[in-house]
Amino acid sequence: MGLLENIHDPWDVKALPEQSLAPLCREIREFLVQAVSREGGHLASNLGDVELTVALHRVYDTSRDRLVFDVGHQCYTHKLLTGRMAGFENFRELGGMSGFPKPRESVHDAFIAGHASNSVSVALGMARARTAMGADYNVVAIIGDGALNGGMAFEGLSDAGKSGEPLVVILNDNGMSINEGVGGLAEMLSTMRTRVEYISFKKWYRKAILPHIRYVSRLLRRAKRWLKERIIPENMFDDFGFEYIGPIDGYDLHKLESALRWAKEQRKPVLVHVNTVKGKGYGPAEKAPDAFHGVGTFDPVTGVPACTGEDFSAVFGKALTELAREDKTVTAITAAMKEGTGLIGFQKAWPKRFFDVGIAEEHAAAMAAGMAAQGLKPVFAVYSTFLQRSYDMLIHDVALMGLHVVFAVDRAGIVGRDGETHQGTFDVAYLSTVPGMKVYAPASFAELRSMLRKAVLEDTGPVAVRYPRGGEGAWKKDWDGAACTVLSGGGASGPGVTLAVYGTMTDEAMAACRTLEAEGVRVQVVKLNVVCPLDTAAVLDSARETGALLVAEEACAAGSVGERLLAAAEEAGIALRAARRIDLGSGVLEHGDPARLREKKGLDAGSIVKTVREMLHAEDQA
Amino acid sequence: MGLLENIHDPWDVKALPEQSLAPLCREIREFLVQAVSREGGHLASNLGDVELTVALHRVYDTSRDRLVFDVGHQCYTHKLLTGRMAGFENFRELGGMSGFPKPRESVHDAFIAGHASNSVSVALGMARARTAMGADYNVVAIIGDGALNGGMAFEGLSDAGKSGEPLVVILNDNGMSINEGVGGLAEMLSTMRTRVEYISFKKWYRKAILPHIRYVSRLLRRAKRWLKERIIPENMFDDFGFEYIGPIDGYDLHKLESALRWAKEQRKPVLVHVNTVKGKGYGPAEKAPDAFHGVGTFDPVTGVPACTGEDFSAVFGKALTELAREDKTVTAITAAMKEGTGLIGFQKAWPKRFFDVGIAEEHAAAMAAGMAAQGLKPVFAVYSTFLQRSYDMLIHDVALMGLHVVFAVDRAGIVGRDGETHQGTFDVAYLSTVPGMKVYAPASFAELRSMLRKAVLEDTGPVAVRYPRGGEGAWKKDWDGAACTVLSGGGASGPGVTLAVYGTMTDEAMAACRTLEAEGVRVQVVKLNVVCPLDTAAVLDSARETGALLVAEEACAAGSVGERLLAAAEEAGIALRAARRIDLGSGVLEHGDPARLREKKGLDAGSIVKTVREMLHAEDQA
Repeated sequence: MGLLENIHDPWDVKALPEQSLAPLCREIREFLVQAVSREGGHLASNLGDVELTVALHRVYDTSRDRLVFDVGHQCYTHKLLTGRMAGFENFRELGGMSGFPKPRESVHDAFIAGHASNSVSVALGMARARTAMGADYNVVAIIGDGALNGGMAFEGLSDAGKSGEPLVVILNDNGMSINEGVGGLAEMLSTMRTRVEYISFKKWYRKAILPHIRYVSRLLRRAKRWLKERIIPENMFDDFGFEYIGPIDGYDLHKLESALRWAKEQRKPVLVHVNTVKGKGYGPAEKAPDAFHGVGTFDPVTGVPACTGEDFSAVFGKALTELAREDKTVTAITAAMKEGTGLIGFQKAWPKRFFDVGIAEEHAAAMAAGMAAQGLKPVFAVYSTFLQRSYDMLIHDVALMGLHVVFAVDRAGIVGRDGETHQGTFDVAYLSTVPGMKVYAPASFAELRSMLRKAVLEDTGPVAVRYPRGGEGAWKKDWDGAACTVLSGGGASGPGVTLAVYGTMTDEAMAACRTLEAEGVRVQVVKLNVVCPLDTAAVLDSARETGALLVAEEACAAGSVGERLLAAAEEAGIALRAARRIDLGSGVLEHGDPARLREKKGLDAGSIVKTVREMLHAEDQA
Repeated sequence: MGLLENIHDPWDVKALPEQSLAPLCREIREFLVQAVSREGGHLASNLGDVELTVALHRVYDTSRDRLVFDVGHQCYTHKLLTGRMAGFENFRELGGMSGFPKPRESVHDAFIAGHASNSVSVALGMARARTAMGADYNVVAIIGDGALNGGMAFEGLSDAGKSGEPLVVILNDNGMSINEGVGGLAEMLSTMRTRVEYISFKKWYRKAILPHIRYVSRLLRRAKRWLKERIIPENMFDDFGFEYIGPIDGYDLHKLESALRWAKEQRKPVLVHVNTVKGKGYGPAEKAPDAFHGVGTFDPVTGVPACTGEDFSAVFGKALTELAREDKTVTAITAAMKEGTGLIGFQKAWPKRFFDVGIAEEHAAAMAAGMAAQGLKPVFAVYSTFLQRSYDMLIHDVALMGLHVVFAVDRAGIVGRDGETHQGTFDVAYLSTVPGMKVYAPASFAELRSMLRKAVLEDTGPVAVRYPRGGEGAWKKDWDGAACTVLSGGGASGPGVTLAVYGTMTDEAMAACRTLEAEGVRVQVVKLNVVCPLDTAAVLDSARETGALLVAEEACAAGSVGERLLAAAEEAGIALRAARRIDLGSGVLEHGDPARLREKKGLDAGSIVKTVREMLHAEDQA
């Protein structure tokens, strides 16, 4: 160390002599491996773009030029070089530095990131704003080959190319999406990647071929025209109106800087194709970049992850693999998340019934609808936050025809340290609007297995099974098959309350129940196993009995289960002494440890106890 | 006439001698112009693909082969040839034939359609199902060049090309999206469109160039390699893994049939590029295909539309054009719907601040976010049903940073005869989940103008203004600036009720109010001007006074305003004598006249009166 600790802002990077850059990059890599091993985070992608980020900061001034990261899990070097080294101390903790770009954190962060494929669109909007307002900053988008597979990236490229707006799109091509390259686009890039650099070939073609070709036969004139048409423009990016250069070696700092300076000078859309390697410079991550994509803590020397138990994703994957054995029409679909969603085993067991479509959630849902229309039983495993991309397809392609597509909605509820762009807090609301949708909320591994079996083999129409990130808690029971389970407390005889909860909130409710019962409060926990359609009758029956209703959930307020239950109580004309709901409200939920976020939002057992006491106290006063 | 009336199913088309096909196509065109002039519907696109549809039915057996229409407003000829001529009598009416493909209507309709760009994904799902289940039918997707611009189409093409699955994608290229071609993709297609047919060139190249090129100089070997690389594969479709043929003249029935037969024989993904002309064969529509895209009734001889008054879209367009004069940072964005959303005038007045991004709602929303981040005031005008596509961007790109993007949500609520794929009945629910979103619901033109002004010039953060298809009703007042307006009835002194409504429901509520007051019922209509966040206090105050609350709205039940208001009443512990809500429920809303659909759902004044009577009656009995 020595160079990095003297980098306080990007001007320090610009001031470094060229021969100091390689040592700086080494120091950055060491720092990143240490920091991520300690706190968890995204590693492989950040190790891949160290040199590219250094080059960007030498060419651009990010305090005014707008650098738009796609997905954003390659921004650690950028954070390091923009005065946020100390932020890696309480990295991704509540109140600490975010793992993604965040404008509120630094003027150098032009835009938030988290969901893939938006960067070209955002950058084009910024470039158009610049032109419309007569400003003169530069706009740069950095997008990986994985994110390029997302349809919005194409929409953005198509519009940007035609616009003529000066802007630079950097294709950070590590030859793999989050998993290995999938789809025709990956194929195309793979061909391009191995080519000689295009800009030098263009020069060679102009110098070497064009003059000679003039003298060859009439027959070859046609070939010449084709040569010209094919070579200039030569690929999809040219076709779309971009000036294309590359592929550039992502670890040749000199070439990177030259290419970026050249691109900056063009007064038009430019695409700079950069070849990088995920995990670059750290053996364990280079060998297994998937495993080091998003990681928990690990041993920085060996790369061995700190031990973690089985999680819902793994249980889902195993259960689905078993179901596929029983029913030959079961297929599994992932959008570039086969590791995260626990489908590696399924792929091995049933390679022909496993479909990784790349980052393409819209396509995944519509394709699943096509499969279901012709008799397969597709299961699309996807994070709650990314399924937002498929909202229209849920309604239009799946629900209007009542097709039996199963959505395995992983990372539902609070996801924790990945933060605001990844929280799975909207799915209860948006899934409930989808005609005919059924939504299960397992609280234990056993329940996940049973509900998945029901959803895949027995249900019809659209079905979702939503489960949280991580492992199960104290609740380990299997599902009794009912839409909701009423769990009576010890039968205290004082004033009563009904606690309606689902999924992860079961443990908090049961803990609150124990405390309250000890205080003489009569508690009925109504554990909702199906949150859409709701078995309101059971909840209302319990509330009638206890006289008060509290609904607690890890979901946004609008369209929540609490809203539906309280509305149903009002419509049924039940005279409750008190009715309340605790949820995540209508704002943005920041990053941080899930337990701490639950506390902050009043969703932990202690807060629930307090709320119930308030409800009963208000009642006494009334 | 003579040929068409003898076509009862596609086998009759197959049986026709080739020389009868052109006369048949003429008859079909005459029939379509008459039918659409009488009932309204989509005309230009249907006139464009008559020959293509005839050729498809000669080559494929749609009772088992799966023909997936993209968007679906080019399926009229298909409906005619599959035994549904009589359906054009009560076309698009409640209970009548749909204007879009609909599997429940015919075995020949493989999938629903309405929203663009899903067909390749759906077809790939079907092809994979066929292969997985060992069946042997053919799968064909038909997609227009406009829909091809949508990102999901690229996601589908990328996956399909790589899959190797035998399937045929027909690019029905009429050289324009719903409006003229936009974006780099349109540019690319425009180049391809004017080329010699690719398949014949391929043959020529193999026969003529390859043998000769062997003898030319070493220098040219490199050129040869490039020729091969460039010519096979030669375009984005080849790059993605498709066998490409075309462009084929869409009015040369013989060539069309040969190309389709050839494509059907390939055991791999094939893209057939067909050149067509929107409005083909009907002068007025060929001259102004935009005007004849989706039409009301018109004079079939002159093409002059039946007179219709000013609508909300037109009022919006004019108002925004004026606002743009006052504030130079106002920009307008449309996703291929500048006519439908009323933005033609804006484009003429402010061409540099007008952006038609093509069918690309995801990109439109994210680009707007980029614009807003850099100081512009973007207004994205979009139909409620298509904004579903941007749901993730609303949350991720716009709301997380609290960016001031205005969404002009057209066709909100019941849209009527376009039916289930186009109903704007989800936006109240999904917009309300978006952090910080404000949603206005104007009921009159004057309110639209005032609310739009507030939303664009004064508000901050994400804002939506939602308004219905068509013109205003009896309510013509301007907005008083309040979140809700309490409209007391004549002050009858009997039992009371609060009617909470918004937008289009204002007229129905006022009419119901008059009837009820005449019966001695005391009514307060609370007209909600802002439906998110809700001014629940005002509604609850009124309900406290009247003692009963009825919420009526043209929206799906989950996440509805009624749900929120009733939950708020329950939480506030207000003892109401009766509380009810009327909405569109949780099912699929079919096509039909809006007034009739409202009646069916109990949302017309008469039904509201009945519901109130029931509420009061139940009260008496209690």
